[in-house]
Amino acid sequence: MGVTALCPGTFDPVTNGHLDIIERAGRHFETLVAAVLENPAKEPLFTLDERVAILKEAVSGLPNVEVDSFSGLLVDFARAREAEVVVKGLRAVSDFEYELQMAHMNRHLTGVETFFVMSDPAWSYVSSSLIKDVASHGGDVSGLLPDFARDRLLEQLGRAD
Amino acid sequence: MGVTALCPGTFDPVTNGHLDIIERAGRHFETLVAAVLENPAKEPLFTLDERVAILKEAVSGLPNVEVDSFSGLLVDFARAREAEVVVKGLRAVSDFEYELQMAHMNRHLTGVETFFVMSDPAWSYVSSSLIKDVASHGGDVSGLLPDFARDRLLEQLGRAD
Amino acid sequence: MGVTALCPGTFDPVTNGHLDIIERAGRHFETLVAAVLENPAKEPLFTLDERVAILKEAVSGLPNVEVDSFSGLLVDFARAREAEVVVKGLRAVSDFEYELQMAHMNRHLTGVETFFVMSDPAWSYVSSSLIKDVASHGGDVSGLLPDFARDRLLEQLGRAD
Amino acid sequence: MGVTALCPGTFDPVTNGHLDIIERAGRHFETLVAAVLENPAKEPLFTLDERVAILKEAVSGLPNVEVDSFSGLLVDFARAREAEVVVKGLRAVSDFEYELQMAHMNRHLTGVETFFVMSDPAWSYVSSSLIKDVASHGGDVSGLLPDFARDRLLEQLGRAD
Amino acid sequence: MGVTALCPGTFDPVTNGHLDIIERAGRHFETLVAAVLENPAKEPLFTLDERVAILKEAVSGLPNVEVDSFSGLLVDFARAREAEVVVKGLRAVSDFEYELQMAHMNRHLTGVETFFVMSDPAWSYVSSSLIKDVASHGGDVSGLLPDFARDRLLEQLGRAD
Amino acid sequence: MGVTALCPGTFDPVTNGHLDIIERAGRHFETLVAAVLENPAKEPLFTLDERVAILKEAVSGLPNVEVDSFSGLLVDFARAREAEVVVKGLRAVSDFEYELQMAHMNRHLTGVETFFVMSDPAWSYVSSSLIKDVASHGGDVSGLLPDFARDRLLEQLGRAD
Repeated sequence: MGVTALCPGTFDPVTNGHLDIIERAGRHFETLVAAVLENPAKEPLFTLDERVAILKEAVSGLPNVEVDSFSGLLVDFARAREAEVVVKGLRAVSDFEYELQMAHMNRHLTGVETFFVMSDPAWSYVSSSLIKDVASHGGDVSGLLPDFARDRLLEQLGRAD
Repeated sequence: MGVTALCPGTFDPVTNGHLDIIERAGRHFETLVAAVLENPAKEPLFTLDERVAILKEAVSGLPNVEVDSFSGLLVDFARAREAEVVVKGLRAVSDFEYELQMAHMNRHLTGVETFFVMSDPAWSYVSSSLIKDVASHGGDVSGLLPDFARDRLLEQLGRAD
Repeated sequence: MGVTALCPGTFDPVTNGHLDIIERAGRHFETLVAAVLENPAKEPLFTLDERVAILKEAVSGLPNVEVDSFSGLLVDFARAREAEVVVKGLRAVSDFEYELQMAHMNRHLTGVETFFVMSDPAWSYVSSSLIKDVASHGGDVSGLLPDFARDRLLEQLGRAD
Repeated sequence: MGVTALCPGTFDPVTNGHLDIIERAGRHFETLVAAVLENPAKEPLFTLDERVAILKEAVSGLPNVEVDSFSGLLVDFARAREAEVVVKGLRAVSDFEYELQMAHMNRHLTGVETFFVMSDPAWSYVSSSLIKDVASHGGDVSGLLPDFARDRLLEQLGRAD
Repeated sequence: MGVTALCPGTFDPVTNGHLDIIERAGRHFETLVAAVLENPAKEPLFTLDERVAILKEAVSGLPNVEVDSFSGLLVDFARAREAEVVVKGLRAVSDFEYELQMAHMNRHLTGVETFFVMSDPAWSYVSSSLIKDVASHGGDVSGLLPDFARDRLLEQLGRAD
Repeated sequence: MGVTALCPGTFDPVTNGHLDIIERAGRHFETLVAAVLENPAKEPLFTLDERVAILKEAVSGLPNVEVDSFSGLLVDFARAREAEVVVKGLRAVSDFEYELQMAHMNRHLTGVETFFVMSDPAWSYVSSSLIKDVASHGGDVSGLLPDFARDRLLEQLGRAD
């Protein structure tokens, strides 16, 4: 019986940085569930369904990666999915401190363990919010997220070419 | 004539992390004033009066700790209370940089000194905002703040059991 | 043919920390363009025109420093101004990580280079937002920005004396 | 076929911080190899054989944890042991940056992945070198490492009571 | 009955950064003991007696500051001097993490509390080791430590003018 | 009259990370002097002459880059070379704090300015010391430094193939 791991995020939309973490971490677990947090507080650009759909297409080549969505506490969703491990990417020191706080709280709540994976340096400066900011001002974000996701982003921003 | 120290915060609501700092620092001053900042910008869950009341109950066993509230600049309140020292807990590097900026500005304004105390590792991941977030989604926050404060929090969130 | 450098910011209003960076960096380039970002997302206290006017007065003694304004992407404005270098001040580790992300993204977009200059320790705790916060509560911010800019700030806050 | 993970260190001697990481990480892999680095550059207090023996005793209750030793590159040893994952504990920001450098280098060399686990706050201030320093000056290090390891340490330091 | 605080260091030699911390912290305690650590591991430039003598001269104008020396554990010396508080200056994030580890260990050992004071920005880049390095290569370190201490340093380095 | 900049280092040996900084920074100055510090304290693997020779070969394609060497204080060498700017690469937060201290000290000593350039993420984990460590244990460091420099390193380590 293998281990199920959960890789949570808002994925608004998924970036090549996210995909790098999902692909690398996914190799070492029986199942990796990429879990889209509804997260209305962040006022996402894409609806939950859209974010799930884009993420599904992006990971379609990874047979042991599933896409799911949740609201509420990560630890409750981990329990529901019988995931014993949470996987998170770390880019920078500021990530580190926030994620450390969340990892300790989650372990306190249910004992779930968090494994951190260092982001590939190539994606160290890539985040969904920066991509949206650049694209919304007409900057070219090709290569920072899958092409079809870039196209969906430009459509959503009313800039499809 | 002993030294009066001020320990400011939003205390929305007080956590065991806050209480650890207040108790430990309070031992080394004649009077420690736990000072609740009105702070409407943060849109607190509890009113100022409620935050003061919860904090008062939480420190009732500490004879040299007083609870007071203020709005406006900390340095003005420190002067009004004849407090020559401000006491702050430090949890993480991100705390450190923000608090360093505030401590330098406050010393520039009136010469008031800030003493920093390292948070006990047991509370390193505890903050009022994370507690509120967890509790609002039904997570059990017992042990992270006094029991009566947890009960008040659940009531406020409409989840009293 | 000398090098043109761009020093971007919201300058709401300019502080002595900004001026220190502009003056020091300006010595080593043929032209330094202090570039005011319109930045409506930050809800500036001063209008773009006011911020430009205050900054112009503050740098009037620096012959090779020009003041300009822009909206949209910094890299597009740098191209329009034929600036091959962006100059930024660094105060703290948290600055460092955010600026590192932006510098990498900007280099990815157009190849523009960013040079970082360490803020003078004397201004390490000075920022426009902290100055506005202190002044709005009646604290004395003299010496943290030019006198005429302080006066404009107090007027704007309805506190001119 | 399960995953083998490697948890490397000098273990001079093993601390409760190390054991916490080994125990927690070990739950999620078929085999976890705690790997003692010979590391003569660090001039260890205990010989390699002694460090292995103490570590073996400390993990004797963990059935899927093996103890082994290596010199040279971690990536070569990981290959020899057919370990596809390296596990490291993270305590602080300074750990983070050093470990990030090593993790990237190791991935560059052979593709081996590193999973990071946050140290339990209770052991955040515990390291082999600080324990040795305290014990060598007569401080009581009980509770920071297993009792039998503390006794071995005091013997080695010529301070057994 | 007032509080005795201990301000430990190698003081090889004392800098204006040390003196700033000692003077500022000393105002808030009945007695502040500036405690010179023998610290042979650091191979100090000055003998323990010399470091004590220089420090004594530097603090001669501060009536409630005493100079003493110790070897071994800080917590044992604090107990011997009946000091309930340790005072340390913090300059940077790297200081912060090391000092956090030491403060937690010291509290674990005897319950002694550590208060941290932010270094004045003017001395943020000043350390004994950097001063010695600069002076040994003929750089002018005037203004970074008391004049008489600079003269003693130049003599010791064989460069008195 | 253009600006001369100095890019100091031990270069033992030069890496692709160094070359990236030298090439990128060199574009914006009339002359960039890559300055090899003698630095006997670090016990370099290569002699000063060897390090200079390797660096010269590595930058032979960059017409406005000169290689020179120095001992003693960087600020004295900068003055001798009439360089008004020092250029340094920044990889990580720990770099940042050390370099900040040095930049402030150097500005205090002679007013020389330091410009920092962010290392390309591709080289973020590359340092001369890690390369030497990996190569000395038989790891393949190709691609992390120029091929001829790698060959010189392997020769020096007695491992030429």
